[in-house]
Amino acid sequence: VNVALLGFGTVGQAVARILRDQPGITLTHVFNRHVARKRVDWLPASVAWTESIDEVLAARPGILVEVIGGREPAGTYIRHALAAGCHVVTANKQLLAYEGGALLNEAARLGRRLAFEASVAGGIPVIRGIREGLSGDQLVRVSGILNGTCNYILTRMESAGLGFAAALAEARERGFAEADPTDDLDGYDARAKLCILARVALRRDLHPDAVSCRSIRPITDVDFVYAKRLGCTIRQVSRVELDEARDLVTAFVQPALVRDESPLARVQRNQNLVVTTGRAGGDTGFSGFGAGGGPTAVAVVSDVLAIAHGGHGAASAAAPVAAPSRVTDRFPAPYYLRFVVHDRPGIVAALATELAAQNINIDALLQEPARDKDALPFVVTLEECDPEDLGRALDRIARMDFHKDPPLAMPVLG
Amino acid sequence: VNVALLGFGTVGQAVARILRDQPGITLTHVFNRHVARKRVDWLPASVAWTESIDEVLAARPGILVEVIGGREPAGTYIRHALAAGCHVVTANKQLLAYEGGALLNEAARLGRRLAFEASVAGGIPVIRGIREGLSGDQLVRVSGILNGTCNYILTRMESAGLGFAAALAEARERGFAEADPTDDLDGYDARAKLCILARVALRRDLHPDAVSCRSIRPITDVDFVYAKRLGCTIRQVSRVELDEARDLVTAFVQPALVRDESPLARVQRNQNLVVTTGRAGGDTGFSGFGAGGGPTAVAVVSDVLAIAHGGHGAASAAAPVAAPSRVTDRFPAPYYLRFVVHDRPGIVAALATELAAQNINIDALLQEPARDKDALPFVVTLEECDPEDLGRALDRIARMDFHKDPPLAMPVLG
Repeated sequence: VNVALLGFGTVGQAVARILRDQPGITLTHVFNRHVARKRVDWLPASVAWTESIDEVLAARPGILVEVIGGREPAGTYIRHALAAGCHVVTANKQLLAYEGGALLNEAARLGRRLAFEASVAGGIPVIRGIREGLSGDQLVRVSGILNGTCNYILTRMESAGLGFAAALAEARERGFAEADPTDDLDGYDARAKLCILARVALRRDLHPDAVSCRSIRPITDVDFVYAKRLGCTIRQVSRVELDEARDLVTAFVQPALVRDESPLARVQRNQNLVVTTGRAGGDTGFSGFGAGGGPTAVAVVSDVLAIAHGGHGAASAAAPVAAPSRVTDRFPAPYYLRFVVHDRPGIVAALATELAAQNINIDALLQEPARDKDALPFVVTLEECDPEDLGRALDRIARMDFHKDPPLAMPVLG
Repeated sequence: VNVALLGFGTVGQAVARILRDQPGITLTHVFNRHVARKRVDWLPASVAWTESIDEVLAARPGILVEVIGGREPAGTYIRHALAAGCHVVTANKQLLAYEGGALLNEAARLGRRLAFEASVAGGIPVIRGIREGLSGDQLVRVSGILNGTCNYILTRMESAGLGFAAALAEARERGFAEADPTDDLDGYDARAKLCILARVALRRDLHPDAVSCRSIRPITDVDFVYAKRLGCTIRQVSRVELDEARDLVTAFVQPALVRDESPLARVQRNQNLVVTTGRAGGDTGFSGFGAGGGPTAVAVVSDVLAIAHGGHGAASAAAPVAAPSRVTDRFPAPYYLRFVVHDRPGIVAALATELAAQNINIDALLQEPARDKDALPFVVTLEECDPEDLGRALDRIARMDFHKDPPLAMPVLG
């Protein structure tokens, strides 16, 4: 089988290294901008190095591998490749999240395969695990740690007591965060993966923009001190859950307190974890490296081999995918509220009054020995409450004049 | 596709419940001894209930599902079914471990599929994950917690401070241990699964009898006290590792100390975990329920659906499987030694002398406040040593006259 490779960055190079040694696979083209800079001596001389997508497609490779990333021009290239008769393997999460429905339908119409294991959780075979290994179950929930950058930052804050800025700087130094980390920190990267998982596991088509994201940027080292007192730690959690009777999907990406004994709390550094919940099989976990050249290349090459060997056909029989009637990010949960205030008498009374007005019960009030009266952190934990009620209380509380920093609210996940 | 079901116990019933609702699948036969007792009203009247395997095979089902367990007569039924043109789905770990090579070759020769996801780690799609999802990697090691009964007992000893007998009794009461728990406690169940994983992940054919098993029966509540002091807990660990250059396989099932931060230490109650290590992708974990009707049925039905939808073809292209030149259970590791002695002066000197004679360094000597001088437990930890040297020292130590219980040695896994 002839394979053309679009993109020769870290992942593309790792893919080429593994493909080179696979019997029955011939790498024919490497496509990249400024390809002359990219040429390496460890690929056979027969490989064509090119900046022309037309040249690649004219050669009609059996499989086109796309590891350029970004929605365009990758999306156009993939559509042209499918139309030219190629099977496609991609690691492109944003493209799959936004245009996966249309692209997969197009591939099915043309009798081509579009494989995307590498688009979610890198080297962890969770797409195949769900689609084939759990096809006998009815899945109702997928949750996990889908962004290695956030997890690196949060676990370094947890274990080394770093502040957010220091942990981010360290992640950048070690290559775990990009120059512009917005997509990672603010949840857009994890959200794309969550939407892909919702499609595969729950057969529901979610528009990424309809899924709520909250940033991890407001988390401070103080939050880890209080989380620890509560038997918890803090993670960027992605979750999508289907209430089939109401055709309601609850989905979010947000920082949350997770109990120490939760599998989510055990995910360290830049690792990923996906946990599926099925009616018959219960919780099944898939963990490992969610990014990096080697792991991502394993997922790409495994897709290439499955197509080359004809073992990637089960998806065609899968149930149709539909948009749910409603998508929400609201679910009742106990909550963690952290305030940083200019201390003065009456603050707790003011907060408690607003919470009581919404029928929200306070569980505990926590305050570490005071340091700076002008920037005094303390924490209020709430019994399970409706986030809509909490939002109303917090809107009023946030307008009070004693805040040094904006209040931070996070659910406590069980 | 017509499906015949052999075995209508807990797993068989769970399989039937799920298959009943699958479009395109028709359950035609339920085969069981004393089948009249087994008949249920929630399956269609068209299902034939039978005690005759000939009747089942004469109907030429497209897929035969075998969930009887045990090597015979299940093996004979499967061979006949393959010869009769059926694809086969089985949950039979002992059969696959002992006769998997021959059966899979026979299936390939006949152009039939023999799927066995349910034979390892129940509902966790680890066979498919390795064979297809990680086919682009070169795996060098598989380790894990493969027996839910042992893990239930050990985690209950850990968390509730139970003695071994009390934990076993509780496991029996709750249905996590059989009346005769030998296969579970002494490692034969985990060993069968480990051999199946070695075949799939490392492409090495291990005869189960060639893999060393050690029982968890000598573990006492005292061992958990000392393990905790060492930042560890105790698990029944299964591991197989390939040294490709020497064609040497290191494989074992044994109780071991595992460090608290290890993923193995986090596996609770009757859960399972499989961790694969690949050259390119690093460690990938698969966790969930390794037994029970629902999870096992998910694996069986997922195999049925993959065959029915033609998505189970990748295995045919896999590399050939060979027996390794050598199988060993010996690898250098730090060790935990626990003694229970009739206390008297000179015991430590005697132990230390024998260890020194084998060039083994003592790391620490631990002793909880003494209780009973006639049955005094204490622990010696050793720096990394060769288990052959340690075996020589322990042979001599075991012959000394101060032992109340036989000495216990466990490696400390990193």
